[in-house]
Amino acid sequence: MSKQKGRLTVPTDIDMIGETVRIIDYWGGDAIRDCDGTVMPDELKSLDVKKYATYYTTRKDNDWARKNPDEIQQVYIMSQFESASSDELRISIMKYIYKDLLQPNTNDDMSKWWEVIDRTTGEIVAFEDWSYDEATQEVVIRNAIPFHAYTVSFLAYIIWDPVHMYNAITNDWKDEEHQMTYDVRQPKTQAYVIDKFKRYLKENPEIDVIRFTTFFHQFTLIFDEQARESFVEWFGYNASVSPYILEKFEAWAGYPFRPEFIINKGTYNSQFVIPTKEFKDFMEFQQIEVSKLMKVFVDATHEAGKEAMMFLGDHWIGTEPYGKYFKEVGLDAVVGSVGNGSTLRIISDIPGVKYTEGRLLPYFFPDTFHEGGDPLHEAKVNWVTARRAILRKPVDRIGYGGYLKLALEFPEFIDYVKEVADEFRELYDKVNQVQPYCVPFKVYVLNSYGKLRSWGAHMVHHAIPYEDNYGYEGYLEALSGLPVDIEFISFDELLERQDVLDTPGVILNVGDAYTSFSGGEYWKNEAIVTKIRQYIYQGNGFIGIGDPSAYQKEGHYFQLYDVLGVDKEVGFTLSHDKYNWDEHEHFITKGLPETLNFGNKVQFAYADRDTTVIKTTGKSVNLAVHNYGKGRAVYMSGLPFNFENTRLLYRSLFYAAGKEDQIEEWYADNYNVEVNMYPSTSSYCVVNNTYEKQEATVFTTNGQTHKVELEPTEIKWFTV
Amino acid sequence: MSKQKGRLTVPTDIDMIGETVRIIDYWGGDAIRDCDGTVMPDELKSLDVKKYATYYTTRKDNDWARKNPDEIQQVYIMSQFESASSDELRISIMKYIYKDLLQPNTNDDMSKWWEVIDRTTGEIVAFEDWSYDEATQEVVIRNAIPFHAYTVSFLAYIIWDPVHMYNAITNDWKDEEHQMTYDVRQPKTQAYVIDKFKRYLKENPEIDVIRFTTFFHQFTLIFDEQARESFVEWFGYNASVSPYILEKFEAWAGYPFRPEFIINKGTYNSQFVIPTKEFKDFMEFQQIEVSKLMKVFVDATHEAGKEAMMFLGDHWIGTEPYGKYFKEVGLDAVVGSVGNGSTLRIISDIPGVKYTEGRLLPYFFPDTFHEGGDPLHEAKVNWVTARRAILRKPVDRIGYGGYLKLALEFPEFIDYVKEVADEFRELYDKVNQVQPYCVPFKVYVLNSYGKLRSWGAHMVHHAIPYEDNYGYEGYLEALSGLPVDIEFISFDELLERQDVLDTPGVILNVGDAYTSFSGGEYWKNEAIVTKIRQYIYQGNGFIGIGDPSAYQKEGHYFQLYDVLGVDKEVGFTLSHDKYNWDEHEHFITKGLPETLNFGNKVQFAYADRDTTVIKTTGKSVNLAVHNYGKGRAVYMSGLPFNFENTRLLYRSLFYAAGKEDQIEEWYADNYNVEVNMYPSTSSYCVVNNTYEKQEATVFTTNGQTHKVELEPTEIKWFTV
Repeated sequence: MSKQKGRLTVPTDIDMIGETVRIIDYWGGDAIRDCDGTVMPDELKSLDVKKYATYYTTRKDNDWARKNPDEIQQVYIMSQFESASSDELRISIMKYIYKDLLQPNTNDDMSKWWEVIDRTTGEIVAFEDWSYDEATQEVVIRNAIPFHAYTVSFLAYIIWDPVHMYNAITNDWKDEEHQMTYDVRQPKTQAYVIDKFKRYLKENPEIDVIRFTTFFHQFTLIFDEQARESFVEWFGYNASVSPYILEKFEAWAGYPFRPEFIINKGTYNSQFVIPTKEFKDFMEFQQIEVSKLMKVFVDATHEAGKEAMMFLGDHWIGTEPYGKYFKEVGLDAVVGSVGNGSTLRIISDIPGVKYTEGRLLPYFFPDTFHEGGDPLHEAKVNWVTARRAILRKPVDRIGYGGYLKLALEFPEFIDYVKEVADEFRELYDKVNQVQPYCVPFKVYVLNSYGKLRSWGAHMVHHAIPYEDNYGYEGYLEALSGLPVDIEFISFDELLERQDVLDTPGVILNVGDAYTSFSGGEYWKNEAIVTKIRQYIYQGNGFIGIGDPSAYQKEGHYFQLYDVLGVDKEVGFTLSHDKYNWDEHEHFITKGLPETLNFGNKVQFAYADRDTTVIKTTGKSVNLAVHNYGKGRAVYMSGLPFNFENTRLLYRSLFYAAGKEDQIEEWYADNYNVEVNMYPSTSSYCVVNNTYEKQEATVFTTNGQTHKVELEPTEIKWFTV
Repeated sequence: MSKQKGRLTVPTDIDMIGETVRIIDYWGGDAIRDCDGTVMPDELKSLDVKKYATYYTTRKDNDWARKNPDEIQQVYIMSQFESASSDELRISIMKYIYKDLLQPNTNDDMSKWWEVIDRTTGEIVAFEDWSYDEATQEVVIRNAIPFHAYTVSFLAYIIWDPVHMYNAITNDWKDEEHQMTYDVRQPKTQAYVIDKFKRYLKENPEIDVIRFTTFFHQFTLIFDEQARESFVEWFGYNASVSPYILEKFEAWAGYPFRPEFIINKGTYNSQFVIPTKEFKDFMEFQQIEVSKLMKVFVDATHEAGKEAMMFLGDHWIGTEPYGKYFKEVGLDAVVGSVGNGSTLRIISDIPGVKYTEGRLLPYFFPDTFHEGGDPLHEAKVNWVTARRAILRKPVDRIGYGGYLKLALEFPEFIDYVKEVADEFRELYDKVNQVQPYCVPFKVYVLNSYGKLRSWGAHMVHHAIPYEDNYGYEGYLEALSGLPVDIEFISFDELLERQDVLDTPGVILNVGDAYTSFSGGEYWKNEAIVTKIRQYIYQGNGFIGIGDPSAYQKEGHYFQLYDVLGVDKEVGFTLSHDKYNWDEHEHFITKGLPETLNFGNKVQFAYADRDTTVIKTTGKSVNLAVHNYGKGRAVYMSGLPFNFENTRLLYRSLFYAAGKEDQIEEWYADNYNVEVNMYPSTSSYCVVNNTYEKQEATVFTTNGQTHKVELEPTEIKWFTV
């Protein structure tokens, strides 16, 4: 028997009636749900739990799609780069694209909606100089310049919903009809879908929660000819387009649309690319339109006496929970996939909804739940990291998705989920609606996206590290469980808002040079450089990780070289001798192991004379601190997530803020142990983040300490 | 007794009369020389050997310097970057500069020859807004913009010759008067120095060779306040300036001079920086003027019946042996410091002189020749690498410099030099004036400097590796001993010369992104990209090391991504999946160890689908090959020098050239063993480059082979 019941959603299926009842009882569930590929059995509709129904506004109606081929959803795609070797060049536009996924749109005016670009010069090739050969799916360029490279940007119909395709392939669904997607933004389909939705609401009185999966536009997800994922951008807007929408955009924006606004040299405006004005305009326009239409569905849901829950995934593009328009929609809840602490915070920090739900991993799909798979391990890693974030800002519910049948094959996993559910409920009772203690200064995360990409910055996939990015994701994961008050701010806000740095604090700037996250060309703007220098000079802090403020200009690579006391050797100053390489003991590494993991990027950073170097690898500084006026800076070459680095970041924040004398408040001397304090309930907990026993001296307040011993992953609660 | 005598220069000193005679006999020397700090004893002037006299045109006459303070040599220096925190900023211009080295020039018009720059905007600060406080050596900027950074570019007199200072400090010379340098380009000093030189020639009939150390302008060498080297650019022109020279330059160039032409954002036009038009103009102007004046000295030397030898070092700036004007000077010889194979080739490849001499390392100075020092080891490493280059293109003589007395303390070293001298003479007899076998295609080394920096590209110091550069120097060191016909070409030549790629071959492009060596902004020029693509497409080769053709543009970082089949992930395409990571066996790594050293730069290079990946480190390609039309490309992430990598480069050249069926000609299957063949003498040698025994199968010609066993460092000669 579970200690408590509730706050837990369990997936069910047509052939899992008894099992669902048993699991609900064992785990203490209070809601059941269907999933893509599963069906909620009628026998469970009378069960005394909430029923969630996944609802797809854009698919699962191939009849409609077939009858309205012009309103099938579309995506902007760029061909491969092809170099001419003579004055005729044929570009096979569907090369390396899964043929059942997309179909080029030749119905609309190609001269307006397609674009052939000479990528050697950046110039558009005149429509007179190219044509499309439908039989071979080739664009034929005449008067090509030999040894120039060309690309074709084109619109294609999404003839198989990419998530449905992913699910079908992952689950090896046989003879599954490919679900097409239709564009709910277009009037004919919109009227049809809304009407159909209203009928559904009437016909399903037993459903309590409409779980929209999701609304109208899929994040960008493309598969190659071998059905392997070839492009994925969870924040991508490529599949939110159609001539209908783009003509509306033109009218709204007041300037003509170009495919390049979406294609952006083939990067598809990956969030690592500094967003252009046109792309920012397009995101804004889409948010306005999407939120208006979302409201229609949400209002209908409410009129039917049900709750409206949005899944933060699949067709979520344009909803932008951290954007300006989301809270006006009136959604009751958001549910999303939780891979670790930062992905939990993506969900739990969303403003303007009544509750949030974290769908924990692993998903019950055969990619994990197969013979030899280790779902238990995945669940444990997932939970320990997610738990850190829950203790700061909890989701209101947790849940699982996929095939219950698969999970039942792993009894240890089933038992572990029971533990997780019980612990979640216990934690939730203690921390829900309770403002936890925060450090006495603000933490600003500065990048090109600011609030809009809260907690999702640097994320290629949910919680999947990339070798060339994992040294940057670590700071966000660390922050997701630290007692800090975070504000995500953008460079544009720095330029536009007078009040943006109005609180004492520490600015973080993290990422590779020239990416949206470190900021690239924003750093050539003197207004940004002077504003930040002034803020720090006056007694605030700056932490730069990787290539902070990088933009080669006037003899420096890091434009805040004077603040950081560190710059990067990119070749131009090799003839300048550098002598500051000795490592020093320092406050920020106190209590940490001698060897720390700064990731796998050798930055060739070097320190000025008055900089205190703390860690180096050969002639490359990994960690250094520097004074600037009354303020301080910390440089780190990288910061992969682990508990040592989390502690390093925490100590660095205090040092940068000039508050190192205040760190020993609600603090443990063992970096594997963290303390969360809740002033309004006069309670605090001491958390073992590891799967080993830990001991720690806990610093409470006013210099008081006590020793704590913790079992693996144990949390101990205390009252002040 | 030495096997032979000759081709060797021995340093002597006033207190080394008997020892010099003994060493000349033991080593088989045929020339003696004095050095900075030593004196040739009168007793040896009748010895039957050639006598070299170092001659300093610009120093060793402090009386003249003191009487003509306005003609003391000058250098352009930039202050530290200083950020303003209010509207007044004081910049201490001599901060971190050794005070006895330089003295700011306040005699000439500061409004013209100094420059204060707002480095946050790049704008010049008007002269009205700043002044110089001579008492505090500070520039005071009024109306500074808070939190902008400023620098001061200023002219300073070189009141201690930097090489004399280096020698004095290294040798701990006490009470040595600091030698000042005077500017031989200025008429008053010029007349005086020429007259004095002519008197010297008359007064020293026993001297056979005037060894100019050197001519007029010191390479850039600055020391900090602790007398540590703070900037060294062996190719630097900063110390070749004065208002007199710069006004002439203005007249020649037809546009006004700016200090920034020399300062270039504080990089001082390090050879890693792509040279600006103005800097190229200035180098050209200096070569014209310097070569004219050199000729005056050389002609006088010849009139006195002596030989004129130039030391390639110290005041060599503007002589440019690989420039257009050098050969018109009529020098008899060049001598220079040899640190390895590539620095030997810098000397031995110089056109337009009768003979060349390599001054081998170590120099007999106490930095190496002290108790506990290991000059023998240094000599061995030096000789084995230099020898590879000698077998391709020998210098005509070798020699040593410094204090003979110090070397005599190391008898093993003295014995080893005898071996070196004998082996050099033996090799010289066999390879002098004999054209060695070369591979059947040309090797082009493409960078911003071309021929002008032949063999010196990527070199910060003579043969001293830098952690962030050693992965790039290796290809030149490898090439210095390989049987290849090399042409160094510049991007400007690619644009200007029609015939520049007229021979079948392989282009090498090597270096960090945006440096002069990889080429940076040249790669945005479509004429360069198309010319190279066409050349390769037609059946030639390309080898890129590090960041070849790197310039972020139109969606790619490597602008020859299509040729290389490789690009670098700098963040913008993280959302594109990459699958080509499997390593493959390949022709170019045949016979090499499984693990190769590609240096310490993780390039995050990834390969296209049709690229053959050969070596990776995690998700980063180290080595890959790719077809392009009838041509081929090889990508390497780095190539530090060692014998495995030398072999890897050699095999890569054949593969890229499409001639892999021809590699087994004058070739050994053991990468520690090399074969050099001399068709005109029908002889070839098999060389063991290591200090261990080696065995190898040697491929001669027409598929014939034989086995060879070699003692450590042994060379065996055979006749065809």
